[in-house]
Amino acid sequence: MRYELYYWPGIQGRGEFVRLALEDSGADYVDVARDAKRGMATMMRFMESRAIEHPPFAPPFLKAGKLVIAQTANILFYLGPRLGCVAKSEPSRLWAHQLQLTIADWVSEVHDTHHPIAGSLYYEDQKAEARGRAAEFIANRLPKFFDYFEWILKRNPKGSEYLLGKKVSNVDLSLFQMIEGSRYAFPKTMARLEPGHPRMVALHDRVMARPRLAAYLRSPRRLAFNEQGIFRHYPELEEQEQD
Amino acid sequence: MRYELYYWPGIQGRGEFVRLALEDSGADYVDVARDAKRGMATMMRFMESRAIEHPPFAPPFLKAGKLVIAQTANILFYLGPRLGCVAKSEPSRLWAHQLQLTIADWVSEVHDTHHPIAGSLYYEDQKAEARGRAAEFIANRLPKFFDYFEWILKRNPKGSEYLLGKKVSNVDLSLFQMIEGSRYAFPKTMARLEPGHPRMVALHDRVMARPRLAAYLRSPRRLAFNEQGIFRHYPELEEQEQD
Repeated sequence: MRYELYYWPGIQGRGEFVRLALEDSGADYVDVARDAKRGMATMMRFMESRAIEHPPFAPPFLKAGKLVIAQTANILFYLGPRLGCVAKSEPSRLWAHQLQLTIADWVSEVHDTHHPIAGSLYYEDQKAEARGRAAEFIANRLPKFFDYFEWILKRNPKGSEYLLGKKVSNVDLSLFQMIEGSRYAFPKTMARLEPGHPRMVALHDRVMARPRLAAYLRSPRRLAFNEQGIFRHYPELEEQEQD
Repeated sequence: MRYELYYWPGIQGRGEFVRLALEDSGADYVDVARDAKRGMATMMRFMESRAIEHPPFAPPFLKAGKLVIAQTANILFYLGPRLGCVAKSEPSRLWAHQLQLTIADWVSEVHDTHHPIAGSLYYEDQKAEARGRAAEFIANRLPKFFDYFEWILKRNPKGSEYLLGKKVSNVDLSLFQMIEGSRYAFPKTMARLEPGHPRMVALHDRVMARPRLAAYLRSPRRLAFNEQGIFRHYPELEEQEQD
């Protein structure tokens, strides 16, 4: 089956978590809105269509045959067993999904560091508030997420190479992306955090070295981080004095 | 099986979405942290325990036999078929879960109207920023969520009584809670929004009239809305002039 991924074309954003899963497993997919000629028009027509049985609230969404699935974690829940990257028992799937949803919460908090007031306004219009929110995020929330996932790696009864059992899963790919994005957005904070979280750093490197993923990351299909995405590098958000 | 729900004892919060599912189906459960003597101590010990196989990042979490499941939507995904309130086919479950995750995003946005800067600070310390975030939420986001769910009700091929098919599901109970909470937090805005969203109002009333749920809502098990929860009534957040 050829999967169709629909997501805003200029950013990694939430779509990237789905791309990493598709790329790492070598799945056949098309990134619909990235087609320079008709991509965005196709996605917008799709979103406004009255004919879709299960209309998404927002991208990303995935077309898989007749199914249309939205919400990043839900897409990954669907893809997991199909791409062979999650155990099939119900407790394992629930646990993987629980971690994926925790990452989804983390993603939203990253977004709100530069958009604490309104997604519909520019960063420049909420810069003062962003400084406050980013200070809190850097001081408390980012370390909390790092501590949690480091702990999950540490206590994996099958070893600390991956979050779940002995094999890589979508949650590992997503955690790689969180580390990669955090390095882009908050390099100074990460320089402080990483030494205390060696298992996460090792997981990041282990994921990045996977042959298909390494090829993807070098390819033009991997968009660069930029200041329209979720992870944005605004040095002023990191450089303020902490209270 | 007697389910054990773990959630902060003084508020409806995210735990309420799980409570509504358990109450409506007449499930046997105990709201662990509400035990005045040892509840909170039990929950905190649980969260700090090194022995749990799948430790939660935060409450709510549900203990079901040996399973421990966190993340509200994940708990409801698990409970759905067991409480008999969701269709069992994979496309139906994915669709229900997609809507549940959209409600989870909505809940986070409600929370951030009064805590746009930091969950660790008091509302009083971020009041000015809360005015900005709430203005955006009231003007754009709340209507967007209402329009979306009204549309989903309207286009349900099995009729507009419920979101999915012909029968009530957890998503309907959660949508009831969103309407109930929005009425508490944003009464003026709701007075404007409700006439344009008749199917949602009817769904709210239909859910509230369900015998087990009606009994629950009258019981002391239903906590009152208050200014420690997610839905808070701060009149100043609604009364400002819109730009």
